Formats: sequence, C-alpha cells, structure tokens
Amino acid sequence: MVAGPMWARTFPPPSGMREEESAVAEEVRSSETVRLAEIPAWDAETDVVVVGLGGAGTCAAIEAADAGAQVLAVERAGGAGGTSAQSGGVLYLGGGTPVQEACGFEDSPDEMFKFLMAACGPQPDEAKVRVYCDESVAHFHWLVDQGVPFKNSFYPEPSMESPTDDCLVFTGGEDTHPFTDIARPAARGHKPRTEGAAGAFLMQRLMAAVERRDLQCEFDVRADQLVVDDSGRVVGLVGLRAGTAFRVRARRGVVLTAGGFVLDDAMVAHHAPQVMMCSWRLSSGGDDGRAIRMGVGAGGAAIRMDSLECAIPLTPPRRLVRGIFVDASGQRFINESSYYGRIGQFGLFRLSGRFLWIHDEQTYEVNDQGMEVSWVADTVEELEAEIGLPEGALVSTVELYNRHAQQGRDPLFGKSEEFLTPLVNPPFGAIDVSSEKVTYATFTLGGLHTLPTGEVLTPDGVAVPGLYAAGRTTSGIAASGYVSGISLGDATYFGRKAGTAAAGG
Amino acid sequence: MVAGPMWARTFPPPSGMREEESAVAEEVRSSETVRLAEIPAWDAETDVVVVGLGGAGTCAAIEAADAGAQVLAVERAGGAGGTSAQSGGVLYLGGGTPVQEACGFEDSPDEMFKFLMAACGPQPDEAKVRVYCDESVAHFHWLVDQGVPFKNSFYPEPSMESPTDDCLVFTGGEDTHPFTDIARPAARGHKPRTEGAAGAFLMQRLMAAVERRDLQCEFDVRADQLVVDDSGRVVGLVGLRAGTAFRVRARRGVVLTAGGFVLDDAMVAHHAPQVMMCSWRLSSGGDDGRAIRMGVGAGGAAIRMDSLECAIPLTPPRRLVRGIFVDASGQRFINESSYYGRIGQFGLFRLSGRFLWIHDEQTYEVNDQGMEVSWVADTVEELEAEIGLPEGALVSTVELYNRHAQQGRDPLFGKSEEFLTPLVNPPFGAIDVSSEKVTYATFTLGGLHTLPTGEVLTPDGVAVPGLYAAGRTTSGIAASGYVSGISLGDATYFGRKAGTAAAGG
Repeated sequence: MVAGPMWARTFPPPSGMREEESAVAEEVRSSETVRLAEIPAWDAETDVVVVGLGGAGTCAAIEAADAGAQVLAVERAGGAGGTSAQSGGVLYLGGGTPVQEACGFEDSPDEMFKFLMAACGPQPDEAKVRVYCDESVAHFHWLVDQGVPFKNSFYPEPSMESPTDDCLVFTGGEDTHPFTDIARPAARGHKPRTEGAAGAFLMQRLMAAVERRDLQCEFDVRADQLVVDDSGRVVGLVGLRAGTAFRVRARRGVVLTAGGFVLDDAMVAHHAPQVMMCSWRLSSGGDDGRAIRMGVGAGGAAIRMDSLECAIPLTPPRRLVRGIFVDASGQRFINESSYYGRIGQFGLFRLSGRFLWIHDEQTYEVNDQGMEVSWVADTVEELEAEIGLPEGALVSTVELYNRHAQQGRDPLFGKSEEFLTPLVNPPFGAIDVSSEKVTYATFTLGGLHTLPTGEVLTPDGVAVPGLYAAGRTTSGIAASGYVSGISLGDATYFGRKAGTAAAGG
Repeated sequence: MVAGPMWARTFPPPSGMREEESAVAEEVRSSETVRLAEIPAWDAETDVVVVGLGGAGTCAAIEAADAGAQVLAVERAGGAGGTSAQSGGVLYLGGGTPVQEACGFEDSPDEMFKFLMAACGPQPDEAKVRVYCDESVAHFHWLVDQGVPFKNSFYPEPSMESPTDDCLVFTGGEDTHPFTDIARPAARGHKPRTEGAAGAFLMQRLMAAVERRDLQCEFDVRADQLVVDDSGRVVGLVGLRAGTAFRVRARRGVVLTAGGFVLDDAMVAHHAPQVMMCSWRLSSGGDDGRAIRMGVGAGGAAIRMDSLECAIPLTPPRRLVRGIFVDASGQRFINESSYYGRIGQFGLFRLSGRFLWIHDEQTYEVNDQGMEVSWVADTVEELEAEIGLPEGALVSTVELYNRHAQQGRDPLFGKSEEFLTPLVNPPFGAIDVSSEKVTYATFTLGGLHTLPTGEVLTPDGVAVPGLYAAGRTTSGIAASGYVSGISLGDATYFGRKAGTAAAGG
C-alpha cells in the first residue's frame, strides 16, 4: 500500500504516463508467443530470466542465483524498484516475529491464517495462505539477512506506515469487528527501519542484495513476448532494447514479476471496470498487464481478474472514525473503525463510490489529506435537508447510532467502543467521500494462476513448463479482500519461491 | 432465465450430475490445442463446425447453412436443446416489436439501449448492446420465420414467463426505480406461444428449422480440443464419440456455443466463488467451461468471469413485494419492487447471501415457492428481538418506511407507489431469505471476449483466425447486471452472427 507522505507526494500521477503506455500496448501483441524456430539467434543466454525488478523480481533473482542458477534480470525502467519502491514499504508478516514478540503481541501461524482467510476472501487460495503464514517468521529473517532492518517498536496509529522509523502497525483491522471474533488480534504490518514511507528504502536494500550476487541486470529492456518450443515449454523471451529486439534464451525458466494491469484501459474495461471510478491508479508506470498477457499467451490462466485494492485515505488521525459513514440513503453500512482499505472496497464495489462522512463539532477535524466538510448545519435535520438526503433518514440513523453509542455499543456493525461517541454537539457536518471528490487509490489484484511454488497453471490446472510468476502479475494472498502490506509481503515471499523453482526447472 | 413451473420441476438438480462432470473435466486438457501435424486423418470434413446445439448453436448452424456453408454440428448430449431447453423460454426483445405494438407499448432501439446499458453494467459492451437493440425487431421476425410463434398479448405479472400462452412480460424492472428515470418503460420479455415454461418449445422449433436445412448433426459427441495450424488458425476439433476420438476438419471456422462454466468447481473457485453459496446451478449438465477453456487455449481472452446471474424466486405473486427486505443490521437496502434477479445479485454479492423479508398480516401470503415465515410476533419490537436483530434497528427501519409509505413515497429506494403499504397490522413476520434457506439459482455470465460478429479476441484484442463463439460461452449483453430473457436473446442473436461470420471465414 502506498500511504503516508506518498499520498501527497505523487498525487495526481504524472500526466501523460497512461497515454504513453496505452500507445505502447498497441504496438506489440504480448499474448502471442514467438516460436523457437522463428528466433534467428539469441542475444543472451542464461538459466533463469526474471522480468521486472520490483519486490517480487529482486527476491526471485536472489533466490535463483543462490540456488546456483545463472540469472539475467530485465527491467523496462532505467532502474530497479518498480511500484514497490513507490509504496509505504509495509510487509504483512506475523506468526510471532521478533518485532511482534518485542512489542508484546502474541501471534501464531494459525491465528494469522484464520485472519487472512477471512480478510482476503471470499475463498482465497488456501495453500498459498497456509505456507505464507507457516513460513512468515522465516521470511522475516531472510529479509533481515538481505539487509532489510526492522526496529523493535510499535506505532499506535493503524492502517498506515509510521511517519517515524517505527516498525509495527495494525494494517488490516485485526483489532476491530468482525476480525476480533475470528482471530486473536496482532499487529502484522512490518515497516523497514527508515522514517516515513519505506518502499524506496526496502527496494534499495533488496537491490543491494541483488548486486552482491553474481547476476546480470539489464535496464531499459521491455519484455514483450515469450518464446515457446514445439512442446509448449517457455524457453526465452523477446524484448525491446534501444529500439531493437533483444532475444534472451532461458535454459531453465522465465519468471514474470512485472506488476499488474491497472494502467491498461482495455484490460480494466474487460475485467475490473470499477477502476474507472478511481482517481489514482497506483503504479510506477509499468503496470500495463503485459506480463499477464504474455503468461496467458503461453497457456497460463488469469484468475480473480475483477479484484481490486481500493484505499481511501480517511485517516490518520484514526480518532476521526468517531464520525459515521452513511450511504446515499442516509444509512450506515460498515464498522467505521475498519481498515480503510476495507471501507474503500465497500465504497467502490457496493456503493458505486458514493457515500458521506458525518461528524459533529466534537469529532470533526481536518484529516491528513485535507478533506473538508461540504455541508454544515446546526441540527441533523437541517444537515439532512441541506445535503438532500431522504427526509428523516439521516435523523433516524443518527438517533439509533447515538442511543447505542451512549451505551458504549454498536450492535449494527460492531464499531470499537473507543470510537463510539454520540454525535450531539452542533454544528454537524458532512464530508463528501464520493469517488469524484476524494482520492480512491487502486491497483489490481487479479493475475496469473500460480502454485505456491510460482509455477503458472493452465485453465486445466497443469503447470506451463518453464514459466513462473509472482507479485501482482499473479493472483496472490489477497484474492479479493485486502490488508495493507500483503502485496509487498506475498510479492517478496512468492517471488523467492518462484526464483527457487525456476532455478530447479 | 429458468422460471415458473421449472422452479418446482427440477429443483433440487438431479444428484450426481456435478460429480460426473467434474470427473470428465479432469480427463481432458481442453485448454491445450492439438497441432494440425498431430492429426493422422480426419473423420469428417466440413466448412463450419458448431459445438453445442442450444439456443446459440442452433441459430449459428442455421445462419451458416443459409450463407452457403457446409455445416456439421456436434452436441455432447443425446439430443438438442442444452440449457436453453430447460429455461422459461423468454427472449429479451424490443425496440418496437409487433407484440409490443399490439399490446400498446411504445418502444424504440434507443430506449432499449439506454435501459440495457444501465441494467447490464457496469460498462457492458456498448457495440454489442447497440447492434442488439438496433436489430431486435429484425431478430423477432427472423425467429418467427424459423417457426417460433408469439401471441400478441401481455401478461401483467412481471419478472417471469407467463403460466399461460401469453407473450409479453416485464422481465427487468423497467417499470420501477431507478430505471423509470433512465428510459421509457416497456415490457420486452417475449415468450413463444405455449403454456408455461417455453424453453423446450423454443428449442423444438429451432431444431425443426435446423432439420429443414441440409446440415449434419452428430449427437453424443463431446468436443474436447481445438486443432490449430502453424499460423495459429483454428482448423478443426477433436472430440469423443462412443469412446473414440472424432476428428473434424473445419475449412472455414469453428463456432463454440457450448454454455458456461457453472458446473466446474475449479473454474468457479478461481473466477466466481459466489456460486458456492447458491443452491441451484442452472444447467442441463454441459456447462463445465470446456468450451471457454478450448477458446482460451487457442488464444482467446475470457472476460468478466466474476459475473453471475442470481435469481431468488420471491415472486409471483408480485404483490408480495409490499413487504420489505432488510439486511443483517435490520436496514433496507433495495427497492423491493425491483426485478428479482437484481435483488438476487444484491443479496449474493453485497450481502453475502444474508437477508430477511418482513411482512405484516396484510402483506403476507405464501409465495409460489412456498416460502414461509420463520419468525412471527405481535409487534415489530418483539419480532426484532425474536430474530435477534440489533435492538431498535428494525423498529427504526419500519417506522421510517411506514412514515414515508403513508405519504405514498419511498425517498430511500424509490419503491413503486402501488406497493407502498405501511406495515402496521399484526402479526408481523419475517421470512429468512438467506442462501442456506431458499433457492438461489445461478449461472455464469463471463466467457470468451468476442466482437459482435462472434469473432473471438485475444487478450491483445486481435481476432483468433477461424474461431467464433456465442451464448454463455461468451461474455454477452449482460456483462454484469442481468435481466430475464437476455441470455436466450443474445445467444440466439449473436449465435446467428457467429454462424454468418464463420461461413464467410
């Protein structure tokens, strides 16, 4: 998740990027493979080719090299990092990491598993979630071994990386209904030790680990098409370097780790049209779905292509969730103390990007994003009328909410007691949280269907020989629902797995 | 849409069918193509091969033959009809058909277009919707020419085919909010002239039209894999007939019209997990996704794979919608006079299959499906407590609803005035409309990405040479939202287009 200072730093996205990418996408048919017989000569030969040097690709390259393979990584940008480098840098890890233990959080792989199965569904890939939880502590240590440091400290403002160099944060609503009934709450968002957004720092450390290995990185190379032999095995790729074809033979395998498809308007329209409602597509510029199309062209299946992360930067500060969210009918629809990515997905998919945030004098302040009230009135009745909500609807909602809040409970949605403050002090105000008014930040969660090993599967569930993938080029832990840090988490973890498997391929 | 007498006649589905299909699906890897060089000899040669003789396949075969092509149709069952024959037989047609005119409905292609673009989205395929509306009257006449008769009569109970031989029904909520604000309401569900469910009758007439042509039909042939030449062109298929391979050469093209994937547990889990919540998967047994996998294997893209029809047979009689639907928080969420397929989709996707139907003495009766009340009480307060809803929530909801209903309006959801009856007469009752308790009937709406001509497109938007598709093997008019009759409507219409295009291929 991109968060914290990032919200302000890179919004709106650089103009022109999307247009440029679309034009590029039309030139090359990435879903068509190149037959081996059509390759006149290889420009390079290696064991494993890694496509894209973001979170997944760096980890894949490291593990493939450590497994004894000759590795060539190609990256279309001029440097490494990808979209991971633009993120907040939080990795979703748990099961009892040293940081969790130092901060007094009791956790286990089973509690983490129960939480992720509930938060990332419906029906996330159980085999992936299982191994991800079982090996999460080991993955933490591996990251440390690569030179990624973590501080043994907890930062109490949830759902976002710390502005300090503190590590641990609640990033998925583990500490509020309904998840408190499902698994023992534990903070699992782990941010590397640097101030504020840590994505660039994380990627610098991972790239330094890459550079310590004897492996080759080629930048400014855009991977376009996979090369397939007569048996259907992926044996290389054709890319573009300085305007000319760059043909690389992969003796053991190709690992696709080149991001998702949030920038490709056609793919978005065909699979995840809700992206069009979002003002901010989170990407460093390469998420045009090309890697997914390459994988599909070689026989892979793309699954859960409708799934999207959608974050609305409502907090910090979290105390703002003492206000209530209401839909276009003036009714509440969610526990306001939920993870803001969960609120974002509800708002985008269930409410078509239309809802309001109601405050009274006591609960209101301007949040870190500068969201200000659109309507103010001395009474809830007047506020309702001013907004144009159905007569009596908001009044009825606030009355019921206040009656329960005075008793310290929220039987409708289970909002955490510490945020249950009756809205009784005038003036009353409403923030328009519709997708036209505030930032809806999104990226795609669907992609190639892979085994936990990174092997890409066909629609019949058979592995495509020589083809591996990880990160947002695949459908990962977050099959549908989302928690902050799970994308970097599964990209780095399953990137490693894919690198290891490809080296053994 | 399967409806009317069908609900009772075939629910629950015949046991064992799904298991048998799953076992079959494991045997053959339909997403792997067969290379032309691997074909020792053809068992049959023709111009156009049509796979599946349901609504789309019969129309494709007819048009291909009428365009001068030699046609061979293969059907895995022992007879024609497919899932279309098990349906209610309603076709969504409009724009000013003779039946609409005779019944006093003013309609135009533009009004039909506005309605379908709103009802079938987000972002349905505009080119398909446009041509479908523009040519709908012509398609009506074509169906009549094939021997499908329609009576010039209107049946006033909406959302379902008539139990009589009457033709025209409201099948998409055209006559209620929000659609009354979007397009001029017109009934567009056209049922062929026979009593009750007309799917079998429709398919008998279409098969008779097939049989009047000089074309070959082979039954008990299961199409398994497409044959592709070195250029990537689809040139035939390999099927299974009486336990042995049946290899058919298609000189001009193959048309895939073999249904959706609702019976395939793996595809459902990877694309549309909400199917698992539904008690009834609408299929005649063949919807195992094989045709979609064949198309993907030949290079086609599968799109909108998360989309599902979901009908809950709440009505008839429609006057039952005078009751109100509330979610697990005791709040209303929809205009109750909506098309029941829209209510079903809301219930399935937004409420995870959990909602209640609240009545008073005046509005309650047992519906045609025999749904009975689960809880009864003398007051709304007592009913709320008995159900275990949050204290005050249902009371607040009913108070607000009644206050508005007494004024003949529903500012929250725009329920039609004729169904706005205050719920004030004890006893009060609640029907449990959760997916565990009542029938949720579903089929898949996602599939191969096609042009309006039926040409199958790759993920890069290029036509796969020699490959065509229609019906629920494709993503059609109903990209996401649904109206009854649109599946038979687009299957027959775009089936025709695909047959014509293949004949010209």
